[in-house]
Amino acid sequence: MQGAYFSAADPDTVTYQADNLICIDNSGYIAAIVTPQDSDYAAILATAQKQDCLIQLSTQQVVLPGFIDLHIHAPQWPNAGVALDRPLEEWLNVYTFPLEAQYQDANFAQQVYADLVQELLAQGTTTALYFGSVHNQGNLALAQACLKYQQRGFIGKVVMDNPEQTPANYRDESAAQALQATQSFIEQLQQLNQTTRISLTPVITPRFLPSCSDEALAGLGQLAHHYNLPIQSHCSESDWENGYALQHYHQRDAQVLNRFGLLNNKAVMAHGTLLNEDDLNLFQQQGVAIAHCPISNVYFGNAILPTKTILQKQIKMGLGTDISGGYSASLYQNIRQAVISAHQRHDGVDGQINALNRGTQDEFLTIKNAFYLATLGGARSLQLPTGQIKVGCYADLQIVHNNWTTWQSETPAMRFEKLMYHTDKNNIDQVLVQGQIIQKKE
Amino acid sequence: MQGAYFSAADPDTVTYQADNLICIDNSGYIAAIVTPQDSDYAAILATAQKQDCLIQLSTQQVVLPGFIDLHIHAPQWPNAGVALDRPLEEWLNVYTFPLEAQYQDANFAQQVYADLVQELLAQGTTTALYFGSVHNQGNLALAQACLKYQQRGFIGKVVMDNPEQTPANYRDESAAQALQATQSFIEQLQQLNQTTRISLTPVITPRFLPSCSDEALAGLGQLAHHYNLPIQSHCSESDWENGYALQHYHQRDAQVLNRFGLLNNKAVMAHGTLLNEDDLNLFQQQGVAIAHCPISNVYFGNAILPTKTILQKQIKMGLGTDISGGYSASLYQNIRQAVISAHQRHDGVDGQINALNRGTQDEFLTIKNAFYLATLGGARSLQLPTGQIKVGCYADLQIVHNNWTTWQSETPAMRFEKLMYHTDKNNIDQVLVQGQIIQKKE
Ligand SMILES: [Zn+2]
Ligand SMILES: [Zn+2]
Repeated sequence: MQGAYFSAADPDTVTYQADNLICIDNSGYIAAIVTPQDSDYAAILATAQKQDCLIQLSTQQVVLPGFIDLHIHAPQWPNAGVALDRPLEEWLNVYTFPLEAQYQDANFAQQVYADLVQELLAQGTTTALYFGSVHNQGNLALAQACLKYQQRGFIGKVVMDNPEQTPANYRDESAAQALQATQSFIEQLQQLNQTTRISLTPVITPRFLPSCSDEALAGLGQLAHHYNLPIQSHCSESDWENGYALQHYHQRDAQVLNRFGLLNNKAVMAHGTLLNEDDLNLFQQQGVAIAHCPISNVYFGNAILPTKTILQKQIKMGLGTDISGGYSASLYQNIRQAVISAHQRHDGVDGQINALNRGTQDEFLTIKNAFYLATLGGARSLQLPTGQIKVGCYADLQIVHNNWTTWQSETPAMRFEKLMYHTDKNNIDQVLVQGQIIQKKE
Repeated sequence: MQGAYFSAADPDTVTYQADNLICIDNSGYIAAIVTPQDSDYAAILATAQKQDCLIQLSTQQVVLPGFIDLHIHAPQWPNAGVALDRPLEEWLNVYTFPLEAQYQDANFAQQVYADLVQELLAQGTTTALYFGSVHNQGNLALAQACLKYQQRGFIGKVVMDNPEQTPANYRDESAAQALQATQSFIEQLQQLNQTTRISLTPVITPRFLPSCSDEALAGLGQLAHHYNLPIQSHCSESDWENGYALQHYHQRDAQVLNRFGLLNNKAVMAHGTLLNEDDLNLFQQQGVAIAHCPISNVYFGNAILPTKTILQKQIKMGLGTDISGGYSASLYQNIRQAVISAHQRHDGVDGQINALNRGTQDEFLTIKNAFYLATLGGARSLQLPTGQIKVGCYADLQIVHNNWTTWQSETPAMRFEKLMYHTDKNNIDQVLVQGQIIQKKE
């Protein structure tokens, strides 16, 4: 592949290269990056042209790493953009749980998941960490959709067995049954992986503390350890959710999850808007990652995540759409909202308060920071060699084109900022997962 | 036109009709709305079909009023999405003023404005209240672009004559010259209007207090009165801008503008994030409108406008993109940000503060409220018969199509909410201004 690219090297640094060759091997890894100064540049270019496997970008186009959606509820896709003015309890019980309950119908699951996976790929998302539903048939349909459309999927069978906090028609029958179903889903995915190009990863998925019994939590901790698998859940998302552990366990969300072996360096915790300093220090110690869901957090998070502080503490963090707590399947929109939310956190909200006391006066999150989160930050959270244009990484890439007229000379920094603020699905021309073109516009 | 439509009747009420006929007269007004229950429905439908002037919507399509962008800086269009992480002073002096200075080149102005006006129309914006630049040649090019592409334009020659707060290469030479240029621009537009289908409106436009001399402000107040024209400016936008009047005049922004005759029922003041209760009461008394620019305010407003309070006080208000303080030309994106910002204001930002003291605990802004602002709220701010699908209004309309698969039965309320959260330029099929189709996708 020949053309311009942007890639995050760390939270603050985005590399730009105008004309490098990105060489992809047969396994879908980036095998070499050749600069015009390298002596073999011309020869490699000529060989690729002769073998008719060169993707040559126009001057309007640029390559970026594919995005990693670090938190998304696949079964909630039909509700994206619905009921966002409802309080959390009504949102869950009237809109969300009844919809998720429908995924015992494998046919329904198949249709929705096919649509969702294609949509995410079209939005440039090459890897996703999915909450499925309670039902393994539905979850397997999601796995099949990932394989069919070739997205790198991390998929969790949701565990929710606490009868006090879950509806009768949508819960695991018992802790034992929930653990049994989790184990069987793990083994089914491992089976599937034996014949596929892209690996799928099963994920240990307690929905959140309120919906799980202690027995289920303890068993999930053991399964995570036994199979050495990633873990995902929600942690200190909202005043209600954060308050549940305080009331029920007299401990903080993070402490309880940790006690059950669910906070380790393969764990990804969504939201965290109400995490306190002790919680963050625990995350740092244990290597826990945070899935920042800036759009969803506005509606349900009750506060703004201190993203700059988290980056400074070098806690792993990526971006999630949190469909359908968030309305948008686009990580570009979440990149923008991450910057917006950080600004708002810094400045505060109430103009009648003196400027110095109005907000937190933390530092801003830059658009580069947010791009890092959507790419390398997500990859590090999943311990995946992706999210970067770099030798040894998967060639998970998106080719996008500018949609603006250039009136003035543009530095790479200006081009990058405009790309981040203006790109949407319609500007994404091609998407590659592990070296193969899996979406291409005519 | 036959099909489904949504239209705001007031801030809280959005009307849905599934099958009405919208009849448009030769002057471009909505002359009648005929329901399927009306006895002449079939006859009118047949006549329209026979005369081959029926626009028939598909079940995926819906008509909405065209949007009104109540605050946009036309010359800043090339900078949309640039330098948003810069402090206001650097943003103004390094990026914004040097760009605006280029519009003395009428050829450059013509090219940029043609691009901008077409973009806004494609985004569903049928009326815009523009800040031009200092230069009348450039401003006339903007007027010509509105006429060519048929957008209802309100255009202001920007006045900025205070040498202490404006760069040497981009300011009015003197107050007298600024007033003279304003007057001549008014007369040139009035001349143009004699031969055009859609009227353009000149607007009295002091940039903001820091950039104007008292003589200029006084003269502009007199011109506004003499010609009975709309006025636009910025008011209490940021701590810096709000502080200028306090320091320089020992009065609040609003008081100073009022003293110069610039706050009346034809005035539209942008931002207002730091308006206090006295200011709002003054706005209410004088009939002043607020252009709420939710995206731009995040970057430069330093606080969140109390939109719900303003609606409750029945102060006129609409939505502005504020290109390029805001990066997006889309009022859909500003509708979403208006809801998001109101949520954030209510909830607050800092999770370490107790929930009850964290935010303002005002009521939320609903997506209906925000749609009202982008349509009828803007129309009322400009005293224009548009922004509604209603007899006697201009037929300023946009026809959009759903871009989602419908998995479950959808109420009109759900359809409306999804439309507001998911529509972008690519879903806008046709745009009509004053009854004429001026944009149509193949
Ligand atoms: Zn979630
Ligand atoms: Zn402005």
